[in-house]
Amino acid sequence: MTRTTIGAMLASSPARGIAADLDLLGEAVEAAGACAAACSACADACLGEPTTAELVRCIRSDLVCAELCAATASLLARPGAHDADVLRPLLEACIAACIACAEECERHAGMHEHCRLCAEACRRCETACRDLIAALD
Amino acid sequence: MTRTTIGAMLASSPARGIAADLDLLGEAVEAAGACAAACSACADACLGEPTTAELVRCIRSDLVCAELCAATASLLARPGAHDADVLRPLLEACIAACIACAEECERHAGMHEHCRLCAEACRRCETACRDLIAALD
Amino acid sequence: MTRTTIGAMLASSPARGIAADLDLLGEAVEAAGACAAACSACADACLGEPTTAELVRCIRSDLVCAELCAATASLLARPGAHDADVLRPLLEACIAACIACAEECERHAGMHEHCRLCAEACRRCETACRDLIAALD
Amino acid sequence: MTRTTIGAMLASSPARGIAADLDLLGEAVEAAGACAAACSACADACLGEPTTAELVRCIRSDLVCAELCAATASLLARPGAHDADVLRPLLEACIAACIACAEECERHAGMHEHCRLCAEACRRCETACRDLIAALD
Repeated sequence: MTRTTIGAMLASSPARGIAADLDLLGEAVEAAGACAAACSACADACLGEPTTAELVRCIRSDLVCAELCAATASLLARPGAHDADVLRPLLEACIAACIACAEECERHAGMHEHCRLCAEACRRCETACRDLIAALD
Repeated sequence: MTRTTIGAMLASSPARGIAADLDLLGEAVEAAGACAAACSACADACLGEPTTAELVRCIRSDLVCAELCAATASLLARPGAHDADVLRPLLEACIAACIACAEECERHAGMHEHCRLCAEACRRCETACRDLIAALD
Repeated sequence: MTRTTIGAMLASSPARGIAADLDLLGEAVEAAGACAAACSACADACLGEPTTAELVRCIRSDLVCAELCAATASLLARPGAHDADVLRPLLEACIAACIACAEECERHAGMHEHCRLCAEACRRCETACRDLIAALD
Repeated sequence: MTRTTIGAMLASSPARGIAADLDLLGEAVEAAGACAAACSACADACLGEPTTAELVRCIRSDLVCAELCAATASLLARPGAHDADVLRPLLEACIAACIACAEECERHAGMHEHCRLCAEACRRCETACRDLIAALD
């Protein structure tokens, strides 16, 4: 497996964070960053659909998920600052936001390709955060 | 008590969030926003001190706390998007970050006024988040 | 005039930023932070109105303005990191976002109190950013 | 060329933003998101080096660049909200932050692999933002 840029950066850091496995950590940073962008794009796309009024829940869960995933990506990328008392509940909040957004987007996935792709990004981030929490135990 | 701008905005929103008490919610948004700014300023000030190398833990906890408080303020300000499954762990993460940053800053409060003021901002945010979690129960 | 917390923090920092006048800088940090919260709250409130479909432009400009004001507040709070090549265009972007959001919100101010208050927060931030740019020259 | 997730999402949006070329826009969203993560990781790694005191400028430019790139990625991902009056100066601010961070990191690239990789991420983002500004003209 080729290491991504963020994976290589984490490997070159003098700090070791909460995760023994740097590939898990790198994947979580990437998945959270990609999910933040996907959710921002999905919220904007939903606002442009003629059926906007029916997509209010989707837009709101997109915006919450985008905000949380961006914060999660930023904090995970700083292994020297990792603190399980902070990261564990943050990962739980991020997982809850990803699930809520994925479930809502999946309801519209047949109609809107942006919702289908956003749900995929949320599920990938949910999995990466779960794997990271499991590695904390 | 005069209502702040954010308090008045929350009162004029058609949405009701997780907190029955809008003053508690408004205070949490304000306290988290002020804490984010204080932590960013404290990190930058610590980087300018001649003893930077001794302030690394303080800088790191400042940066974590700034990031989490900014996300918390943003999500709390959206009552129509409140979801206890997301907000409860997020508030717990924010409280943990505020405690860690306050404890570290308090160690330097006698030497650096920016640390003393930052610790105060963290304690105010910690209290506001605790009050909000209590109102969820 | 009583100095705010952020004003006192900037005064206690060993770093001097781009602005000779710390009160101007403190006001810009406060105004940008308050505007970010107001815009997030307004976007959420607009999503809860029965006329959401007519408020799409307002929601979008709220979200852009919230994001930019949050970044601006964060960067202004770090005087040791000030760099006019970065801050000048950032302040210009923030001013443009505040004007766009204020103009859109003002169109709905008679109908929605949250839009009226949001427009006020945008105008305050616009003014604070303009004053800061003027102090750079 | 395989389209990335964000590229496919932008293609499925009913909105068309400022850039006629969706691949340019998708690359800018990806490059800015990757740069934000790289800069956060580099700042944290620099704080862990024994020579922290000599890396203060690097840490500060990392933090500024991380904040601006995150905001830029978020706003570019919302084509329905694109406004050249906001985006042009924001891209200019982002480019200035990327150049400042790249130049500082390049000074330490021989010593610290995280600085070398961070400079690469900054240069990629700088190029993507320049290409996008050129496409606006």
